Amino acid sequence: MAPRIVAIEERTRPIASAIRNAYIDFSQMTTSLVAVVTDVVRDGRRVVGYGFNSNGRYGQGGLIRERFAPRLLNADPAALLDASGENLDPDRCWAAMMANERPGGHGERSVAVGTLDMAIWDAVAKIAGKPLFRLLAERHGREPDPRVFVYAAGGYYYPGKDNTALRAEMRSYLDRGYTVVKMKIGGAPLAEDRARIEAVLAELDGKARLAVDANGRFDLETAIAYAKALNDYPLFWYEEPGDPLDFHLQATLAQFHPGPMATGENLFSHQDARNLLRYGAMRPDRDWLQFDCALSYGLCEYQRTLAVLTECGWSWRRCIPHGGHQMSLMIAAGLGLGGNESYPDLFQPYGGFPDGVRVEDGYVTLPDLPGIGFEGKSDLYAEMRALAE
Amino acid sequence: MAPRIVAIEERTRPIASAIRNAYIDFSQMTTSLVAVVTDVVRDGRRVVGYGFNSNGRYGQGGLIRERFAPRLLNADPAALLDASGENLDPDRCWAAMMANERPGGHGERSVAVGTLDMAIWDAVAKIAGKPLFRLLAERHGREPDPRVFVYAAGGYYYPGKDNTALRAEMRSYLDRGYTVVKMKIGGAPLAEDRARIEAVLAELDGKARLAVDANGRFDLETAIAYAKALNDYPLFWYEEPGDPLDFHLQATLAQFHPGPMATGENLFSHQDARNLLRYGAMRPDRDWLQFDCALSYGLCEYQRTLAVLTECGWSWRRCIPHGGHQMSLMIAAGLGLGGNESYPDLFQPYGGFPDGVRVEDGYVTLPDLPGIGFEGKSDLYAEMRALAE
Repeated sequence: MAPRIVAIEERTRPIASAIRNAYIDFSQMTTSLVAVVTDVVRDGRRVVGYGFNSNGRYGQGGLIRERFAPRLLNADPAALLDASGENLDPDRCWAAMMANERPGGHGERSVAVGTLDMAIWDAVAKIAGKPLFRLLAERHGREPDPRVFVYAAGGYYYPGKDNTALRAEMRSYLDRGYTVVKMKIGGAPLAEDRARIEAVLAELDGKARLAVDANGRFDLETAIAYAKALNDYPLFWYEEPGDPLDFHLQATLAQFHPGPMATGENLFSHQDARNLLRYGAMRPDRDWLQFDCALSYGLCEYQRTLAVLTECGWSWRRCIPHGGHQMSLMIAAGLGLGGNESYPDLFQPYGGFPDGVRVEDGYVTLPDLPGIGFEGKSDLYAEMRALAE
Repeated sequence: MAPRIVAIEERTRPIASAIRNAYIDFSQMTTSLVAVVTDVVRDGRRVVGYGFNSNGRYGQGGLIRERFAPRLLNADPAALLDASGENLDPDRCWAAMMANERPGGHGERSVAVGTLDMAIWDAVAKIAGKPLFRLLAERHGREPDPRVFVYAAGGYYYPGKDNTALRAEMRSYLDRGYTVVKMKIGGAPLAEDRARIEAVLAELDGKARLAVDANGRFDLETAIAYAKALNDYPLFWYEEPGDPLDFHLQATLAQFHPGPMATGENLFSHQDARNLLRYGAMRPDRDWLQFDCALSYGLCEYQRTLAVLTECGWSWRRCIPHGGHQMSLMIAAGLGLGGNESYPDLFQPYGGFPDGVRVEDGYVTLPDLPGIGFEGKSDLYAEMRALAE
């Protein structure tokens, strides 16, 4: 029987936290949780695809309800099917959602579409009866690798936080099996950030690497000052020094910072990603790209971004997406990305891994669950089931 | 008495039309109409600022209600005032709206904020008892010029339209006083577009100039093919040949098309505008910039974009904004832009001029009405008054 999308549900949920980075505080942060309900039954249950957007850009219930869900629901169901007629075609669903959308302006709607796209891919893999990472690897003629590098992101500026607490936080990531940890910079003067970095490096004691993240806060002079100062430390990367669209700033930093840099979490289309590669002087032998499909029109668009990487001579291994969600774990395992972000203590229940998955020596090994595998994470699945089942 | 914002209203309205351009059809198009209600009384009436977004990017009721209006309403009223304490400060209002918004991702929210920003500037000028163009000129130490160049945009691909109808449409713009008219290209094969262009040029018979607009549809090869073909005609400009973020495509065209080009209506921040000037090889002696404040975080951000122009060596005269709304007329008159778009037969009642204003020899002369002057356009003001008075 040809599958049909019979309903789309959305709820905007708080993912508030007392943290702040150099740019925003997260006390009002929300996410959209969506369910794409099909008329397909697998293992005695109706197939429902689930999705949500990752932290930082707010839920998108308005756009989903006003434009993107109605276009899917009003489309000719046959136009959403793949060539076999036995599954949905994510690219055709994507095209239906983006009908009558103008080019350019890649923000907000990129989150709305990314959230729905996640749910569609989840449904497609469930209908196929496979983990999404295996389905993706098949489609690209690749060998999947369920073992994925993950790093622990944290080190925010908590209210009243001092370096003792920061060290303890980083120690706890080590204790949980991570080999790379990340902390925020740029929310304090450079001298204070230096002391924080040195405290963390002392705590890590060579047992893990440290990445630092400025969240796009610096102007050119500050970014250069940090770039030079950070040369004193053996960092895993120096992340998002300046405005995400200031490619000239990024390019200038390569002259001051021979160590690895990372950026891209605030670029939401393959066109914006292409501009970073064209104009940002990012170095394919050491730098990292952090585009997050959940904020960027989803996996359909992410595959176009990966095609841009290939065109520009970049390995997909240089991608370690922002966001800490299972969708990017699937893509990493299926398409050979370099790994994925993880927030061990934040944004629950949306972030993290299926129950029972442990970080060992900096890697997780994904279980074989149909779809994206949300059903294997009980706290998250409880939220999802309440939405649509 | 220190002014306060006491309420913000939003309604999403259809601005549907049977037209299509090369990229989208407009049958489902909407706009957000907003009212920023103050507690100030002028001439016996409560001051209400009005705004709306221009065509092409849809209404933004969800974002306005969920994020941007609440931030304004929840802000400390004193934090929204200018130094005198007797008027609102648009930049402070803007900062309040954009609190806890991350950098990058300039779409949709840029429309929501642009719409509210328009209403805030309308209120500020009404509280000051001046036309906005005079208030703006004062703030920038310039001489205002209420006489503004406008051109007639149309020439869409109507269903069943042939060149007779297209010629008649263009003739009607001539008859209404326009000296530059614009038609769409790229929605038909090049040979057919050539015939359309030649038909229109014959109709214009040297009495007006013709601009053509591809609405970002072309890939590089098609854009080049059109660039070369269009060299045969004395065009006013060749607009938005490729994807608005494909600055490399735009830069390449300069090698094939010595005539004027225009773009920018789908770039929604000063960072995106700066990238066009940095990477697009646009020529400050002949090309045109079409950034539209109503889609791009409003006049507060537009002033930052103008500062980028100055930094890059561009005259503000090279700006002829997209959108056909009175807000850009105000900016053109107050800050010396090159003119404004006009859609004589479309998007009513939102586009156009105050009642009684006529296009003469390609120019309109703005009357001295407080604020943006919406109250002088009776069909538009009827919609606005129904929202908030």
